[in-house]
Amino acid sequence: MPIPAPNLYPAFNIVRLSHVELMVTDLAASRAFYVDTLGLQVTDEDDQVIYLRAMEERGHHCMILRKGGTPEVNSLSYKLYSEDDLDKARDWFAAKGLPVEWVTRPYQGRTLRTTDLFGSPMEFYFKMDRLQPIHQKYALYHGVKPLRIDHFNCFSPDVDESVAFYNEMGFRVTEYTEDEESGNLWAAWMHRKGGIHDIAFTNGRGPRLHHTAFWVPTPLNIIDLLDLMSTTGYLSNIERGPGRHGISNAFFLYILDPDGHRIEIYCSDYQTVDPDLEPIKWDLTDPQRQTLWGAPAPKSWFEHGSAFAGVDSRDSKMKAQPIIAP
Amino acid sequence: MPIPAPNLYPAFNIVRLSHVELMVTDLAASRAFYVDTLGLQVTDEDDQVIYLRAMEERGHHCMILRKGGTPEVNSLSYKLYSEDDLDKARDWFAAKGLPVEWVTRPYQGRTLRTTDLFGSPMEFYFKMDRLQPIHQKYALYHGVKPLRIDHFNCFSPDVDESVAFYNEMGFRVTEYTEDEESGNLWAAWMHRKGGIHDIAFTNGRGPRLHHTAFWVPTPLNIIDLLDLMSTTGYLSNIERGPGRHGISNAFFLYILDPDGHRIEIYCSDYQTVDPDLEPIKWDLTDPQRQTLWGAPAPKSWFEHGSAFAGVDSRDSKMKAQPIIAP
Amino acid sequence: MPIPAPNLYPAFNIVRLSHVELMVTDLAASRAFYVDTLGLQVTDEDDQVIYLRAMEERGHHCMILRKGGTPEVNSLSYKLYSEDDLDKARDWFAAKGLPVEWVTRPYQGRTLRTTDLFGSPMEFYFKMDRLQPIHQKYALYHGVKPLRIDHFNCFSPDVDESVAFYNEMGFRVTEYTEDEESGNLWAAWMHRKGGIHDIAFTNGRGPRLHHTAFWVPTPLNIIDLLDLMSTTGYLSNIERGPGRHGISNAFFLYILDPDGHRIEIYCSDYQTVDPDLEPIKWDLTDPQRQTLWGAPAPKSWFEHGSAFAGVDSRDSKMKAQPIIAP
Amino acid sequence: MPIPAPNLYPAFNIVRLSHVELMVTDLAASRAFYVDTLGLQVTDEDDQVIYLRAMEERGHHCMILRKGGTPEVNSLSYKLYSEDDLDKARDWFAAKGLPVEWVTRPYQGRTLRTTDLFGSPMEFYFKMDRLQPIHQKYALYHGVKPLRIDHFNCFSPDVDESVAFYNEMGFRVTEYTEDEESGNLWAAWMHRKGGIHDIAFTNGRGPRLHHTAFWVPTPLNIIDLLDLMSTTGYLSNIERGPGRHGISNAFFLYILDPDGHRIEIYCSDYQTVDPDLEPIKWDLTDPQRQTLWGAPAPKSWFEHGSAFAGVDSRDSKMKAQPIIAP
Repeated sequence: MPIPAPNLYPAFNIVRLSHVELMVTDLAASRAFYVDTLGLQVTDEDDQVIYLRAMEERGHHCMILRKGGTPEVNSLSYKLYSEDDLDKARDWFAAKGLPVEWVTRPYQGRTLRTTDLFGSPMEFYFKMDRLQPIHQKYALYHGVKPLRIDHFNCFSPDVDESVAFYNEMGFRVTEYTEDEESGNLWAAWMHRKGGIHDIAFTNGRGPRLHHTAFWVPTPLNIIDLLDLMSTTGYLSNIERGPGRHGISNAFFLYILDPDGHRIEIYCSDYQTVDPDLEPIKWDLTDPQRQTLWGAPAPKSWFEHGSAFAGVDSRDSKMKAQPIIAP
Repeated sequence: MPIPAPNLYPAFNIVRLSHVELMVTDLAASRAFYVDTLGLQVTDEDDQVIYLRAMEERGHHCMILRKGGTPEVNSLSYKLYSEDDLDKARDWFAAKGLPVEWVTRPYQGRTLRTTDLFGSPMEFYFKMDRLQPIHQKYALYHGVKPLRIDHFNCFSPDVDESVAFYNEMGFRVTEYTEDEESGNLWAAWMHRKGGIHDIAFTNGRGPRLHHTAFWVPTPLNIIDLLDLMSTTGYLSNIERGPGRHGISNAFFLYILDPDGHRIEIYCSDYQTVDPDLEPIKWDLTDPQRQTLWGAPAPKSWFEHGSAFAGVDSRDSKMKAQPIIAP
Repeated sequence: MPIPAPNLYPAFNIVRLSHVELMVTDLAASRAFYVDTLGLQVTDEDDQVIYLRAMEERGHHCMILRKGGTPEVNSLSYKLYSEDDLDKARDWFAAKGLPVEWVTRPYQGRTLRTTDLFGSPMEFYFKMDRLQPIHQKYALYHGVKPLRIDHFNCFSPDVDESVAFYNEMGFRVTEYTEDEESGNLWAAWMHRKGGIHDIAFTNGRGPRLHHTAFWVPTPLNIIDLLDLMSTTGYLSNIERGPGRHGISNAFFLYILDPDGHRIEIYCSDYQTVDPDLEPIKWDLTDPQRQTLWGAPAPKSWFEHGSAFAGVDSRDSKMKAQPIIAP
Repeated sequence: MPIPAPNLYPAFNIVRLSHVELMVTDLAASRAFYVDTLGLQVTDEDDQVIYLRAMEERGHHCMILRKGGTPEVNSLSYKLYSEDDLDKARDWFAAKGLPVEWVTRPYQGRTLRTTDLFGSPMEFYFKMDRLQPIHQKYALYHGVKPLRIDHFNCFSPDVDESVAFYNEMGFRVTEYTEDEESGNLWAAWMHRKGGIHDIAFTNGRGPRLHHTAFWVPTPLNIIDLLDLMSTTGYLSNIERGPGRHGISNAFFLYILDPDGHRIEIYCSDYQTVDPDLEPIKWDLTDPQRQTLWGAPAPKSWFEHGSAFAGVDSRDSKMKAQPIIAP
């Protein structure tokens, strides 16, 4: 299917991705990874849950780690422009026949819980507790100096359908990979906040979360993290990179948390606020779309992901195969 | 006056600042500065005018250099979301009693010319010729590797009034400096596109353009430019920096073009898309607002600016004095 | 064999490695690679030969490209402390029964040609034409901004013997890899000028030149080169990296020139001037010695090298196998 | 006086500068500055003294902080090549009529204490306790990530005489500033270890220590330190910079410790191991010698220094004035 025309006047106004809630099996191990190693800041914690924010964020949390028996994803959350948008969102999802529910979430205002077309749990809010700025408290910076949550990336069993669904919500495609043979989308990057993406979809057994990404200041911070992880017991948590993506032009590193949840460290993509920005098309057979410098991704990168809690995943409709490291 | 509440539903939708047109007295000298030294790309030129774009931009131009007898500024331009917004903008300015005129501009669709409250010439369009991406043509990168135009900064004789006017157009204040004694605004930073600012106002004889800023990848590109300029005859064009601003947290350098138009090289501010982002207040007596590391700006930086063609400037209403390098 | 004790009072005083002379089959292609892409400066050239220097070097050349039918290495050259050392070097090599010959080399004073224990051609001089400094002519910097030649790395059929031979000449071991089982050296890094190495030996069919390395300012210059090479037709010339070596702690990239001569781009090792600096020992089975971040080197990196002109190579004495990328 | 010809065969072999011992009035304040803020590592401490090393050093200390009533400098120390050189050094200083004394220093072998021509206390040793490498223990890196002590810079009342004296000891001039009018040296940079300098002399009331410098990986580490110091109570300790020196081409920052001892953070000079390296001459009236980018140094930088304990300083013989920030 071709890329749909952008929906410039969606039914409700999503500002940006907001946060992810992960189930983790060992809170202390996760804290060592996200706080001590990556450098996220704890905004609240007890023996069941840890709330985290990155250095330039003023909202209370961009990641929630909740203790559980299985490493899963509880929800992907988005910030809406106004309270009015919240009600419009409820109506839009309800009209699609998708489950809608008002839920209570600490540190947030009224919150809507629903799912996307394949059952991935989504939550929407318009108001979250605002904290004092810490972006100039340089004594707090450490690890990879994470500045903000940047995007989600999900496996989808049908990327064409996922793109159509999110496009209707106002997410705009910036870049995409097409399987020339079938004409199907292999992957697509879609944004609300003016970067390459708030969420991307890539072909595979799904729905599952492929990774959550954090934005950092420069490629040197990623090199610093590699030095740190490789000398503090996290060598086997380094999965792919560093490198520059062809798609997005960003400098990247992929790492795995103690439960196998994948995190991307990411910087230097480009501004996409123009509503008439033309999406960039890549061919599935072009190795430079994955890594501009030519190195293919490892097999695990195409196969491994985090399940959404209580959601069954299904096989992808596509048979095409990407280029995989030998 | 206090900062006005943000206008979340303005009468028309401005996407971002777009471009500036400068009158320059020697096109060859300006080309040596902007193209050979800074690294902007020529998209069209003849013996009267040069059109430029930065490396990640797809629109035809972010800067127009026009040959003329006097170094002046012809206009500051903005991109609108849709053609509909163009007509709404015309009505809004006309209702304010400000001059409105449809003008023809090469490489642009229908274009509105008008002025702001103090007579600064503004132009609005919704459609500009789109060019092929060059952000991955790395052989073209040189100089400071400018990625995109980032913002304008203008002297205003009454910052409170300027802020009220632009706030009504939907620009939101991210940071501001207040004179504690009078309660007046000394300066304010206002955005549309999700960074610290598309335009800032600073107290002084005005309206005049203080500077135009370009975004670059990392502080090291700014150091490279300093090395290049100081060994290629541009030593006296370096005015202030490098340093980190307290306000915006950006890494900066100020330089002067051959006609004295001021350019800021800028990177690493933060994301501001949240509609409920709280503006950060700075005191006029705090030296760290100018430069986080304490160095005050030189006198010229507070006094020198570029006039708008055909626009009379007036003295500022404020008597307060900022901290100036001895 | 254990690492020999450093010879603190060698028979003659080698200051540093100086230059390499490579036979290349297409001078124009080599010029495009070394000059236009890497950024080395031409100090003389005609239709048979190109002389190059890096940005902070004052000697006339660090690399000589000579047109020939076969990609080979003509010689590895070293600078001596004084003319007196030149005569002492001649005597030392003659006493070893190795061939010694006075040769004339453009831009150099009296020059000795000889070979090492395995027949690798070596040349020694004490005086080379000195050129004006260009390290502050920043308009000349481009490509990877090469600052100076840093080291040679050679395949040796018997690293223990190579180390003993170069140790006697005053080269000191800084780091080494030992095969725990046999007790043999797998590889060793040896210096004269105060860094990790002027020359390294690695086990393999030899003697052959594994690579020549250039020092650059920061890891970001290496990232710039990767972006440039991958978008200007040199994608397949990228062999390994970027990464940080465990051994030497340097940030590295390996690339192949148009004839397959391997070049390393290298920065950030450490100072080794102390005569009592203890060598650091690595185990052959430790994957972090190759790349601190864990990625193994590709097979080609262990097998491919450049022959020395007119020199037969022989198989290595060792059977041990390093860790190779799958 | 002209620069003297380098003494290529000095009476004894100095490897490099080694360490400085500073008297400080508040050990806890000094520890907060050098350890918590700059990132030096403590190798021993009690309530009277702290021993420090930088990240790539294997010797026990590069700086000793000793509690005392007056901020002074106890000695500048150098590492010799062998024990034999120690006896030769004693004889050389004794023959000059300078005081020589064998002293006992913790963690060092036999140590000679003497003075230079103007009474500055110097100590020489050949053996210091060697510690385990920590340059790959990346969890320890913080602050400005200091890698090694780089150089001393001293005020001298007669730079011509200082240069002649240190030249005889084998220090070689790499760059120098001459007062064109009188023909006197204003300043000179002299090295043993292959960089721009182990010690520099600059005209002024002396002998006094102008500063001690530490080498860091890249300019970004210096920017990180500025951000940290300016937001943790050290704003007024920032004296000059950041900038690039004309002389040495290094990127620099000058800061003051809690007692006013000046520290330079320094990176990216060039290799100087060639014995025939031609010194670079700068004119006292050239503002770019101080800062390549044109900014002059503040007055304090030309006047303030640390006294050597028990040593009287005298006025400089020169009347020339450098360019000072207005």
